[in-house]
Amino acid sequence: MPHVDLPKEYPGIRSLFMFRPETAAPLNHLVQTLLHNPHPTLSAGERELIAAYTSRLNECKYCSTIHGAIARHQLDNNGEDDTIVAQVFDNMETANISNKMKALLRIAASVQAGGKNVTEEQVADARKEGATDIEIHDTVLIAAAFCMYNRYVDGLATWQPDDDELYDKMGEQRAREGYYTPPFKVAVDSN
Amino acid sequence: MPHVDLPKEYPGIRSLFMFRPETAAPLNHLVQTLLHNPHPTLSAGERELIAAYTSRLNECKYCSTIHGAIARHQLDNNGEDDTIVAQVFDNMETANISNKMKALLRIAASVQAGGKNVTEEQVADARKEGATDIEIHDTVLIAAAFCMYNRYVDGLATWQPDDDELYDKMGEQRAREGYYTPPFKVAVDSN
Repeated sequence: MPHVDLPKEYPGIRSLFMFRPETAAPLNHLVQTLLHNPHPTLSAGERELIAAYTSRLNECKYCSTIHGAIARHQLDNNGEDDTIVAQVFDNMETANISNKMKALLRIAASVQAGGKNVTEEQVADARKEGATDIEIHDTVLIAAAFCMYNRYVDGLATWQPDDDELYDKMGEQRAREGYYTPPFKVAVDSN
Repeated sequence: MPHVDLPKEYPGIRSLFMFRPETAAPLNHLVQTLLHNPHPTLSAGERELIAAYTSRLNECKYCSTIHGAIARHQLDNNGEDDTIVAQVFDNMETANISNKMKALLRIAASVQAGGKNVTEEQVADARKEGATDIEIHDTVLIAAAFCMYNRYVDGLATWQPDDDELYDKMGEQRAREGYYTPPFKVAVDSN
């Protein structure tokens, strides 16, 4: 049961956005900017993958499942391999992703463990694989931001559904429309 | 040296805000909403104290020092004991703060270690001391948000000055004006 009195028809962070609209506005603006708006070089699928991977390391079920689903739909829409999310969740080092993405995900993993863990060697490795300043910056900020969203969702013990089809449906909507579209309500009796 | 090419005349997160204005906007909106805007029950000093305490647990020098300075000025402006920040940094459990603030800071410490660490007992203790749903919510979100800001500032190895007077001057400005005022430049030769 959530630690505060949240609306029962929305899962995860969406129940918190309904509870506190004042903070929902900048939190939603941040995720839209980081993950959905046009980016000079990283696709939405790649950015969602960094978010999903960080959430997985934080063991946040709601965020890793929903951002995993969004990443899958983004990669699929882009004509890319949509099994990549499952591969990265299984073992990032052997997943069928570029060396640049692996170097960025290693930086994200360091951020997840604590900002001071990012090493000059990790940054140099990413640059060697072609990563730009903006890509390194955004990787650190996406990983840091999901250390916030994950703690927010788990720290207030929000409702996190078990229904994979529901996450897939929500993920398809977010991949298509971004984060500003209001969430659809989920039947209260499944809560 | 920072991991990406940041403007040298601004310390900590301010150099990152200058580097990437697109993400600076929601990040600054969030901190203004959480810490500076009017709140139903928590003073700005109390909210800054939660931010400073979390940053201290994350060992983020820039954030703990600047938010410690802002908290000190907020408490002082409010006619309260401005040595409270030093007491909380030394040992929160013996600091001269209310039992409610102690209960909220224990929740913040759990969030810092990971969202799932917040227990029903901690929340019940906070309620017993009079904490409201909004106070519990905002404590979790402030602590979660500083797990982001701290990782962002340290993960990109920003410049974090050693000059206590500089933090005090910056803290006095933020306590008075909030987060939307542009930062003043710091002499580059001190960098």
